Amino acid sequence: MKTEAVHYEGGLVNHYFDANIAFINELHDAQKIVILTDETVFSLHASSFQLFPVIKINGTEANKTQQTVDIIINELLNLNVDKSWMLVAVGGGVITDMGGYVASIFKRGIKLGLVPTTILGMTDAAIGGKNGVNVGQYKNMVGTTYRPQYILFDYNFLQTLPKAEWVNGFAEIIKHACIKDLEMFNTLSKNNIYYYINNINAIANLIEQNVQIKTSVVVNDEFENGERLLLNFGHTFGHAIENLYHLPHGSAISIGMMIACKISEEINGFYSSQKEQVAQLLTQYHLPIKISFDKKAVFDLLVKDKKRSGNYINFVLLNAIGNAAIQKISFEQLADLNEQIL
Amino acid sequence: MKTEAVHYEGGLVNHYFDANIAFINELHDAQKIVILTDETVFSLHASSFQLFPVIKINGTEANKTQQTVDIIINELLNLNVDKSWMLVAVGGGVITDMGGYVASIFKRGIKLGLVPTTILGMTDAAIGGKNGVNVGQYKNMVGTTYRPQYILFDYNFLQTLPKAEWVNGFAEIIKHACIKDLEMFNTLSKNNIYYYINNINAIANLIEQNVQIKTSVVVNDEFENGERLLLNFGHTFGHAIENLYHLPHGSAISIGMMIACKISEEINGFYSSQKEQVAQLLTQYHLPIKISFDKKAVFDLLVKDKKRSGNYINFVLLNAIGNAAIQKISFEQLADLNEQIL
Repeated sequence: MKTEAVHYEGGLVNHYFDANIAFINELHDAQKIVILTDETVFSLHASSFQLFPVIKINGTEANKTQQTVDIIINELLNLNVDKSWMLVAVGGGVITDMGGYVASIFKRGIKLGLVPTTILGMTDAAIGGKNGVNVGQYKNMVGTTYRPQYILFDYNFLQTLPKAEWVNGFAEIIKHACIKDLEMFNTLSKNNIYYYINNINAIANLIEQNVQIKTSVVVNDEFENGERLLLNFGHTFGHAIENLYHLPHGSAISIGMMIACKISEEINGFYSSQKEQVAQLLTQYHLPIKISFDKKAVFDLLVKDKKRSGNYINFVLLNAIGNAAIQKISFEQLADLNEQIL
Repeated sequence: MKTEAVHYEGGLVNHYFDANIAFINELHDAQKIVILTDETVFSLHASSFQLFPVIKINGTEANKTQQTVDIIINELLNLNVDKSWMLVAVGGGVITDMGGYVASIFKRGIKLGLVPTTILGMTDAAIGGKNGVNVGQYKNMVGTTYRPQYILFDYNFLQTLPKAEWVNGFAEIIKHACIKDLEMFNTLSKNNIYYYINNINAIANLIEQNVQIKTSVVVNDEFENGERLLLNFGHTFGHAIENLYHLPHGSAISIGMMIACKISEEINGFYSSQKEQVAQLLTQYHLPIKISFDKKAVFDLLVKDKKRSGNYINFVLLNAIGNAAIQKISFEQLADLNEQIL
C-alpha cells in the first residue's frame, strides 16, 4: 500500500493506493461506519461488506436523482446514524457522487470515505470533492464540493469490472492526456485496452499517474474558478449528448472531445493532423468518435450548462495535444459552429 | 447604515445594519440578482422587489421541505441562473434557511445574500451560515453550512411584523441572555414586549447586541464542534415538541428552555430561584412555559437528534443565568429525567 496526504485549502485528503478495502476498519471507528454501494458491486464482493450496515442502490446514471437521495437519507435515519459516523461509498462514479452529496447534506455533513471501484471512478469521479445529482435532463445540476477523509484504491475491484467500464474509464484518461500530458498520450498510443486489462501493474501505474494529474489541477482550484475548468474538455457537448441519448459517460465525452477538437481546429489553429491522432487514440480504446444528434436539442441543453457565464460559455479548447486553454465563446458563435461544422 | 465585516475561517460576511433593502443593488450586478421571498412579505413590500425576478413561496415551517427545494430549483433553471448570479433571500427563518440551502447546492453553489425580515431571523436564523430542510418530523435533518456574502438588516420590515412574530423572536433573544448575558437578561426583565414593538431605536440596539452574541459564538466554531452547541439551549426538547405539536418555534423553544432549566436544577445545581426568574421573563414576553406532551413520542424524536453522539446527547444546561455549559447525558438518564421530573 502506498499513501499520500493531499493538502487542500483548510484540510487534507488521504490517498491509499494499492490498498485492500478491509483497511477501512483502521480509518474510522468500525462501529460507526455505514457503506453505500451498488447492487452489482455488493453481489460480486459481498464478503468485503460483512462487518457493516450496507445501503444498496442501483448505481446507474438514471438513478442519480433526488429520489435516490431521499431513500439513502431514510436509511441513514433508520440506522440512527449521527455526525460521529462515516459514510463510505464503494462503487463507480454514481455511487461516489451520491455518497459525497448525501454525506455533505445529512445533518449538515457527516464524515466521508471513498472507495472507487471503476477506472472512471479511480481516475476522475472520486477525486476533487465535486459531487452531483441530476435534475431532469440536466446533469449534476445540484451538488456540493465536499472533501472526503480519504480515497482508497483497491485494484481487486477491477478484476470484476466489465469491459464496457474499462472503455468508459479510458475516455477520462485520454482527456487527461489531451489537456495535460503529451508523454502519457504517446504511451497510450503505443498500447491498447487489452494491454491494460491484462496487466495489473500497468493499470495501477496509469491510475496513479491520472490521480496525480487530476489532483494537481483541483488542489489549486477546489471551487472551480480557473484551471479546474480544463477538466471539462469534451464535457460541454458531451454532457448534453449524454443526457439526450443516454450514452455511457465515456462514449459521450469521447464524442464531445472530438467536437471540441473540431472547434479548436476552426477557431484556435489546432492542427488537423493532431485532431486525427486524438480520433485514432479514442478508436484504439474502443470509444466512439461521432454520433448524429439533434442540433437544436443539444444547443438548448448547452444554454443551461453550469459553465455558462452570462451570454458566454467557458469552452475548453486544445492548442496542441497536452496543452489546453479556456476560451469564452458566445452562444451566437456556438450556434454558428453547431450549424456549420458539426 | 452601519457596516461590519465578520471574518470566518477562509472568508468574510458583511453585516449592514439599519440599511434599506434598495442597497442590495449596490452589492451585486443588479442584472444577476434573483429574490426568494415569502408570499406575505412580497404582498406587503411589493415595491421593494420591482427590479428583480422574484421566486415566491409560502414561508411556513411545513413548507421547509425537499418539495419546496425542487420548486425553487426549477424556477432558477427557468430563469437561466448561473454561477455568476446571487440569490437574495428576503424573509423569516424559513426563507433564509431555504435560500441558503438552495444557494449552496444549485450548480454546486451560487452567491447568497440574506435580508432577514423577522426578529427571529435578524437575531438568530440568518446568522452563522447554518441552513436546513425538514425530513418528515425531523427538523433540519438535511442542510449545509454555507456563508452568505452579506446580511442586510432593514428595520422597516418590522413595521409589518405581526405581534406573534415578535413573541417568537424574543424566545431566541431570551435564550442568548440565559446562556451568555446576565446584563441583557436584567435589561429585558425591566422592559416588556410592547416597549420594543413601539421603540425602533430600542429594538435596533437589541438586535445588534444579539447579532454580536451569536456572531461571536459562531465565528470561532463555524462547524459546531464546541461553543456553538450552547446555542442549542432549549432546542433539544424544543425541536421535538415543535415537530410533534406544530407550535411556533419560539413557543417550543420557550418550553424547551424551561425543561432544560428543570434538568439543570436536577443535575447541575442551578438555583430554583433563577429557574423562576427565567419563567417570569418568558411569561413577560408572552411565551408559554409548559405544555403537556406525549413523553414517549418526544423521546423517540430525541434519539434522532443531530446533537446525538453515540449513546449520549450533548445537552446544554445552565450553571447560572448568563452562564451555560454542555454536558453529555446518556439516553438512559434522559429517559429517567423525562419520566420523573418533566
